[in-house]
Amino acid sequence: MKIGILGYGNLGKGVEAAVKQNSDMELVAVFTRRNPEDLKIKTDSVPVLSVNEIENWKDKIDVLILCGGSATDLPEQTPKYAKMFNVIDSFDTHANIPTHFEEVDKSAKEGGKVAVISVGWDPGLFSLNRMYANAILPEGNDYTFWGRGVSQGHSDAIRRIKGVKDGKQYTVPVEKALQSVKNGENPVLTTREKHTRECYVVLEDGADAKQVEHDIVTMPNYFSDYDTTVHFISEEELKKNHSGIPHGGFVLRSGVTGFDKEEKHIIEYNLKLDSNPGFTSSVLLAYARAAFRLYKEGQTGCKTVFDIAPAYLSPKSAEELRKTML
Amino acid sequence: MKIGILGYGNLGKGVEAAVKQNSDMELVAVFTRRNPEDLKIKTDSVPVLSVNEIENWKDKIDVLILCGGSATDLPEQTPKYAKMFNVIDSFDTHANIPTHFEEVDKSAKEGGKVAVISVGWDPGLFSLNRMYANAILPEGNDYTFWGRGVSQGHSDAIRRIKGVKDGKQYTVPVEKALQSVKNGENPVLTTREKHTRECYVVLEDGADAKQVEHDIVTMPNYFSDYDTTVHFISEEELKKNHSGIPHGGFVLRSGVTGFDKEEKHIIEYNLKLDSNPGFTSSVLLAYARAAFRLYKEGQTGCKTVFDIAPAYLSPKSAEELRKTML
Repeated sequence: MKIGILGYGNLGKGVEAAVKQNSDMELVAVFTRRNPEDLKIKTDSVPVLSVNEIENWKDKIDVLILCGGSATDLPEQTPKYAKMFNVIDSFDTHANIPTHFEEVDKSAKEGGKVAVISVGWDPGLFSLNRMYANAILPEGNDYTFWGRGVSQGHSDAIRRIKGVKDGKQYTVPVEKALQSVKNGENPVLTTREKHTRECYVVLEDGADAKQVEHDIVTMPNYFSDYDTTVHFISEEELKKNHSGIPHGGFVLRSGVTGFDKEEKHIIEYNLKLDSNPGFTSSVLLAYARAAFRLYKEGQTGCKTVFDIAPAYLSPKSAEELRKTML
Repeated sequence: MKIGILGYGNLGKGVEAAVKQNSDMELVAVFTRRNPEDLKIKTDSVPVLSVNEIENWKDKIDVLILCGGSATDLPEQTPKYAKMFNVIDSFDTHANIPTHFEEVDKSAKEGGKVAVISVGWDPGLFSLNRMYANAILPEGNDYTFWGRGVSQGHSDAIRRIKGVKDGKQYTVPVEKALQSVKNGENPVLTTREKHTRECYVVLEDGADAKQVEHDIVTMPNYFSDYDTTVHFISEEELKKNHSGIPHGGFVLRSGVTGFDKEEKHIIEYNLKLDSNPGFTSSVLLAYARAAFRLYKEGQTGCKTVFDIAPAYLSPKSAEELRKTML
C-alpha cells in the first residue's frame, strides 16, 4: 500500500514513523503547503512536494492521510481530496461531524473513492467502545474521562494571557469520580467533579504572578468551571519535564441485566499514551488499510469507524484471525 | 425481530431476560430437549416446545439463539440449525473454532442463512479488543487476565473429588502482574505468576480435609500449575456467599511507536460482571440484531465478531450513531 501524507506537523511525523511499523505499507510522498525546500523530513528517500502538485500523484498513492487540523484545514481538505484519493482524516469537532460526513460522502462518491473520517481515539476508538457497550447493555450510563494528558487548546489559551511566556495544561480525571463509576455507583457528575486542570506556566520578566493566576482560573469555558491549579516554573523546567504530548482516558459503561435488573456490569476501556500524535497516527494507518481494501472491493463514499468490520484493519487473513485472535 | 431460544440453562435464562431490555426484539419460543411440560420459564406468554418441533418454526423465528455447551451441544447443533435459521452461538473451545467455522459456514450457505459463532466476551469482546489493539500497535505484547470470577470447569473438577460435597472455584488475576503490565514493563509471566485459584469447599460428613486439600492443589492441568488456596466452609455459607456467577477480566496491549520506538502506549479493556451468563446473553442479542440485518441484506454463511461492522449491533441508525456516539 502506497501512503501519502498531507501536512507535516506532529501528526504527519507520527504517520511517517508508523508506516515503518507496518510491513505492508510504504510512504511515497509528503505534501506541504509550505515551501517544500524549507521542509526536512526524517525519511531521506521520500520526496517532499508542494500540495499544488498533488493531482499528479492521483495514480501513485493508494491512501492519502490528511494530517491537518479540524478547525480550518480538514473541512476544506477532506472533501477536496476525497475526489482524487482514498483519504483518512482525524476530524474531531464532534458537533460538526454530520455536516462533514455529508460533504465528504458526496465527494468520495463522485470520485469513486473511500474516505474514512474522524479516526483516532476520540473520536475513534472511544466512540467504538461507547457504541459497542451501548448495544450490549441497553440500560446503563456512559462516562468518558480524559487524561492525564496535555490539552493543546487549553495550553494555547494560557499562552495568550498577558505576562505568560510559555505554558502547558494537563487535563486530569478526578480519581474519586472515576472510582465511583468503576464501583457501579452511577454517580451524576458535574464538570468540576470529573476533571481538574493543572497548568505549568513560565512568566515573562516582570509579570505579575497573582494576576496571571487569576486570569487563568477565571477564564470562561476553558478554566472557570474547573478546579485549576497553576504552577509557575522556569523555562528550563518546562522544557525538561513538560515537552511531551501524553494523553489518554477512560470510557466506561455501567449497566444492568437480569429480570429484576439485579446484575450490575462495568465495561471499561482505557488508554495510557506517551504521545497523542504517535498513537493517533497508528490508528489512522490501520484505517488506511481498511479504506484501501474497501476501495478494492468496489465500495465508495464516506465511512466512520462504526461502518468498518474490524477484520479490515488487520494485515492478517480472516483464517489467521480466527485461528490466533478469536 | 422474533427471537427463539434453544436450551434453557443459565444462558437461555439470560437471553430471556435480556430480550425485555431490547425494544426491537420479542421472544417467541423456547425449545428444550427435556419434556417441555417439565420446564417452567419466567415469561408466561411464551410457549415452551420440544426441540423436535423446531422445524415448524422456520418461518416464525428471525434469529435462534443456541444456548448449549461447547463440549458436545454446539458442535452438533450450530451446523444443524444454521440450515434452517439465522443462528448465534457462544462456542468457546478456542482450538476448535476453525473447524466449527467451516462446518457452520457450509450449512448456513446451504440454507441461505447467517450464523455468528463464538459470541460472548472471550471469545467475543476480548477477541475484538485483542484484534483492534494489534492492528493499531503492530509492535507490542498482548496480555489477557481472567477474573476475579467463577470458573465452571474448575468448580466441576473440585466437586468430582472424593469427600467433596460441593464447591466453587474463583480464578483471580495476580495484582502485581497486572500492575506490571499496566506500567508498561512488558513482563514475561508464567502461568503461576498470572492467576491464583481460590476454592471454597463443603466437605462430606467425615471427609479428610487434609486429603481433599492435597487432592485439589495437586490436580494436574486444573490446579498444579497455580498457587491454589482451599477454604472449607459450611453448606449454608456456600449458598449465602458463593451462589453467584460473577466473572470478568482484562485484555491489555503494551506497544510502542515513534522513530526510535521511544513512545510507550497501553490499551486496556476490562469487564467486571456480576453475572457471566447475564452479560454473555446480552452480547448474543446484540449480534442477533446484526445477523438479522446481514440476512436481510442478502448475506449468507458463517461470521465472527471480526467480520461484522459495529453499527450492525446498534438499534440506532447510522445518522443517529454519527450524531450521538462518534
